[in-house]
Amino acid sequence: MKREIISKLQRIVGKNQLTTTPEELLCYSYDGTGREYPPDAVAFPADTAEISAIMRLANAAPFPVVPRGAGSGMTGGSLPVAGGLVLALSRLNRILEIDEKNQLAVVEPGVITGHLRDAVKCRGLFYPPDPASLKFCTMGGNVAECAGGPSAVKYGVTRDYVLGLEVVLPDGTVIRTGVRTAKGVVGYDLTRLFTGSEGTLGIITKITVRLIPYPAARKSFLVQCRDIRQATSLVTEILAAHRPCTLEYLDRTALHIVRDRLPFALAPDSQALLLLEVDGDAGAVAIQAAALHEFLAEKELPAIMRAESAAETEALWAARRAVSPAAFTLKPHKVSEDVVVPRSRIPELVLFVEELAARHGLTIFTFGHAGDGNIHVNIMLDKSNPQEAAGAETAAGALFKEVIRLGGTLSGEHGIGITKACFLPLELDPASLAVMQGIKKFFDPNNILNPGKIFPGPGCPKNN
Amino acid sequence: MKREIISKLQRIVGKNQLTTTPEELLCYSYDGTGREYPPDAVAFPADTAEISAIMRLANAAPFPVVPRGAGSGMTGGSLPVAGGLVLALSRLNRILEIDEKNQLAVVEPGVITGHLRDAVKCRGLFYPPDPASLKFCTMGGNVAECAGGPSAVKYGVTRDYVLGLEVVLPDGTVIRTGVRTAKGVVGYDLTRLFTGSEGTLGIITKITVRLIPYPAARKSFLVQCRDIRQATSLVTEILAAHRPCTLEYLDRTALHIVRDRLPFALAPDSQALLLLEVDGDAGAVAIQAAALHEFLAEKELPAIMRAESAAETEALWAARRAVSPAAFTLKPHKVSEDVVVPRSRIPELVLFVEELAARHGLTIFTFGHAGDGNIHVNIMLDKSNPQEAAGAETAAGALFKEVIRLGGTLSGEHGIGITKACFLPLELDPASLAVMQGIKKFFDPNNILNPGKIFPGPGCPKNN
Repeated sequence: MKREIISKLQRIVGKNQLTTTPEELLCYSYDGTGREYPPDAVAFPADTAEISAIMRLANAAPFPVVPRGAGSGMTGGSLPVAGGLVLALSRLNRILEIDEKNQLAVVEPGVITGHLRDAVKCRGLFYPPDPASLKFCTMGGNVAECAGGPSAVKYGVTRDYVLGLEVVLPDGTVIRTGVRTAKGVVGYDLTRLFTGSEGTLGIITKITVRLIPYPAARKSFLVQCRDIRQATSLVTEILAAHRPCTLEYLDRTALHIVRDRLPFALAPDSQALLLLEVDGDAGAVAIQAAALHEFLAEKELPAIMRAESAAETEALWAARRAVSPAAFTLKPHKVSEDVVVPRSRIPELVLFVEELAARHGLTIFTFGHAGDGNIHVNIMLDKSNPQEAAGAETAAGALFKEVIRLGGTLSGEHGIGITKACFLPLELDPASLAVMQGIKKFFDPNNILNPGKIFPGPGCPKNN
Repeated sequence: MKREIISKLQRIVGKNQLTTTPEELLCYSYDGTGREYPPDAVAFPADTAEISAIMRLANAAPFPVVPRGAGSGMTGGSLPVAGGLVLALSRLNRILEIDEKNQLAVVEPGVITGHLRDAVKCRGLFYPPDPASLKFCTMGGNVAECAGGPSAVKYGVTRDYVLGLEVVLPDGTVIRTGVRTAKGVVGYDLTRLFTGSEGTLGIITKITVRLIPYPAARKSFLVQCRDIRQATSLVTEILAAHRPCTLEYLDRTALHIVRDRLPFALAPDSQALLLLEVDGDAGAVAIQAAALHEFLAEKELPAIMRAESAAETEALWAARRAVSPAAFTLKPHKVSEDVVVPRSRIPELVLFVEELAARHGLTIFTFGHAGDGNIHVNIMLDKSNPQEAAGAETAAGALFKEVIRLGGTLSGEHGIGITKACFLPLELDPASLAVMQGIKKFFDPNNILNPGKIFPGPGCPKNN
């Protein structure tokens, strides 16, 4: 990046809010994928006006600009793969408004999702999206990737809560999209077009989200199943009559990994787990939980555990939480793939993964959001072992093909970023892909905003 | 339309599936606005392939194509304002699939919304969007306009249920968007871009919608309030703690119109009505209804009526249903405007409307979805009286300005079409409008698909 550009950037954000020192660049070069691409500079703008000025400069120069929240993304969305400027949005971290009467909040993109959830909870309100990273990920990143979480099975994903946005376009123009009312159908839905666009169409500088009443009560069950088929068929039956707010599963391999680390004993014939929760008003939850318990008790299950206190609920969640730490005792690296299949086809996918693991001599376990078929497939490996590294790559490719064959989709909540860009043509027909590329070109003709993301590049193999 | 074009269209759809006779054209010239624009021809294509062939022809010729469902739209979305071909989608009327296990349905655009609701109800499933026209409107039109309805306060609008689409683009290209899984974030959200685009970006030929379990029980209340302020403040309090599936209101004028036509007596001091319903499992609903009743009983209300049977529920709804028929005994014509304000500001809007009515010597009443601030403002007039016609037009303009001043939006569920196109700049900043126009131009460079809709045309007054 030219000296002259650096000077101009310094004039926009102030000398102290721009860095080019290698140590600091390093801190903004990686994300949840573990991959590293150092930028040429990192700017810490104070507000929308500074971001707009930066984009005008970048578009004229031109140089790449990569917006960044907490860097917790799992597919490389915030990585400066083409160098250029990282736009760190950490100073735009204010909750601007919580409107209790109309049940909405307006936040800046750097607000940590968990902070928003806590702030509105104090007013009896609930912001449901709950990505696993909610204690450190940011609202801007959540909107950019359309983050989900366990509660999506009942409450939906980020897209379902974003009412409106303020966005700086690649040429520096500032637009406002959407509404601050419960409904609105005026013109094209730019709000949802930006949501999930992975920072490639504009930089989100304000977010208006809708809120709902905080559910006062919650009851949790841990259901030990004989196998994944029994677990999945329970999921289908449960969802036909109940509206759980959590419906997570662990497969046989995951269970094997954590079996000795749990604060409770598993039944010997337990080969799959379901973690099941209902929430709402205290009275209604008691009725729902009783109905669920009755339903479960009629099934031939190895065990049903019901949490009666917060501590007991924590113990049940321990199974899910123990998986990742335990897995790293097997191998030093984990490749985690977020895929979705129609939930009735979960058993087929899990069996496919077991065969895949055997074929490549790898440990692969799955867990995730059984209620919406959103499965996290985790491949354990030692990256310094070329055979394992190659096997993991081949296995991931085979997994994606199987997901599409089962009527699924390549990502439920992590996005495409760089890690899945080459596989996009597996899912999207060429005409859809051309439409998306046309939209990118319309918004960003000079391809300066987060280049190299989503779309397959020249480096992709010809036949995925 | 040239003889040669007509022949080519006949070759695509078959001679019997194209009409140019004036009597038949008349049947496809109007919609719920009562305005009439006869097309040059009407085609009844059988499938996606025929629609694609028609679009290729239209794009090359070029001539305008206007997709049409049931013609029940309220803002002119299906009117052929520039002539050309009306594409009647009535033959694409099959429910292609109901997948109970994965809780989704795939339908063609000509399926009547109520038919889908009935078909899935038989399987214990629920498609929540419930526009007032659900007995005759079509799914294609619902997606094109992003239809809502009373249940939106709990369940959301059409956008919240559309998972994926098949769309014929203006040049005849067929694309598939979205997923058939509960989650999906692959590439840009074309599904929601088409939803609410009022038939201007593509012709929807297949729709995949998600379904939820059918709520087994429902309880209804009619709450008589002293005035609109009391009603609105109740709405805010109710929504802070409960999740009703209906929260409708009638204002003082509407109540005055129907007072003598109700199957029950209103308290003399009753000046606003709330119609309130909760649904869900029988047990949970009983608890919710009891809690609501207790809450309402503590308020100083003229009367609270609780329906204990289906017949009693019908009687409560009679108040809401009686308004339109009763209004036409006052004046022969009604202009109905669909607007939204933050729900805490409903009283301000209702008082503004009362002043507006007095100023113009018109009867204007409001009712609608109090829970989401989505208000239907009804101006009664005799269009043959030039003074009333001019007054109604001025009143509508003033209404839109006030809605924007209150932080609202010009449409909650009816769209912009032709009736509000001139007012769009009141709500959208020039940069947003330019982005939307750019998107239209990208999808439809020859402006052949439903031209003259959404965007302000040269005929709009300079300063709205």
